[in-house]
Amino acid sequence: MTVKISEMRPAECYHFLESTRFGHIACCRDGRPYIAAIYFAFSGSVAYSFSMPGKKLDWMRANNKVCLHAEQLVSGGWTSVVADGQFEEFPDNDTWKSERLHAWSLLKMHPDWWEIGAMKPYELPMLNQSPHVFYGVAVTSVSGRIAVTID
Amino acid sequence: MTVKISEMRPAECYHFLESTRFGHIACCRDGRPYIAAIYFAFSGSVAYSFSMPGKKLDWMRANNKVCLHAEQLVSGGWTSVVADGQFEEFPDNDTWKSERLHAWSLLKMHPDWWEIGAMKPYELPMLNQSPHVFYGVAVTSVSGRIAVTID
Repeated sequence: MTVKISEMRPAECYHFLESTRFGHIACCRDGRPYIAAIYFAFSGSVAYSFSMPGKKLDWMRANNKVCLHAEQLVSGGWTSVVADGQFEEFPDNDTWKSERLHAWSLLKMHPDWWEIGAMKPYELPMLNQSPHVFYGVAVTSVSGRIAVTID
Repeated sequence: MTVKISEMRPAECYHFLESTRFGHIACCRDGRPYIAAIYFAFSGSVAYSFSMPGKKLDWMRANNKVCLHAEQLVSGGWTSVVADGQFEEFPDNDTWKSERLHAWSLLKMHPDWWEIGAMKPYELPMLNQSPHVFYGVAVTSVSGRIAVTID
């Protein structure tokens, strides 16, 4: 059995990111990296997501350079895409209202988010009192590889 | 539906890492993070793995602070563990021979590694001419969370 590994073109990487919604994000602070799993919705070169307050959010606020990774494992092969980008927060104010609405309209398509599952209906993140923070990762470069098994 | 999220004790985190073999590793350089998916074997607070030459290896050699993340998704819940640690290379020389043998003895238990699948038998990483680099992540701290759905 041999596995053929091919580089993906940027357009293929973007298409893959649009087709998936689970991945991992890395950020770093003082020369130390940190990873978390995230759900996201990718549209127009931005990965939209939201987060509870915590280490990930603190670190991305301190250093907006982030790395997003998503993969798909299938029988006999895999696709792996990594994207460099910049964290951008969508604060809960009028300036960012349209971005928040856009992010939410994309994210709510899949009601089984980990974090949404933990919330009561009255805690939906569109409400002002929610501690959730909407953010986007504006992707600046992508690379990816596809592996296919050849018998 | 409510999801109950609990913090894991360090011993639970280590046990989880021992029970899994797929995760993501992050490293950083000049304030920019990078992620890659890896297979590993965790034993004695060290995650053993190997890598082809490339960006991940270059960056971990330049800054040995890394972050390892592994999760398990099951119906109605998930386990997520994140570990801080230090990259340590096991060069192909007599000094590191026992570490390389130990790493390989753990890793070879699962013959379906992505990278192993790509190799011909004569390219097994124990051979001197292999470009693969064995390394370990010596874990210094762990944290984890378990989510369980409560109806």
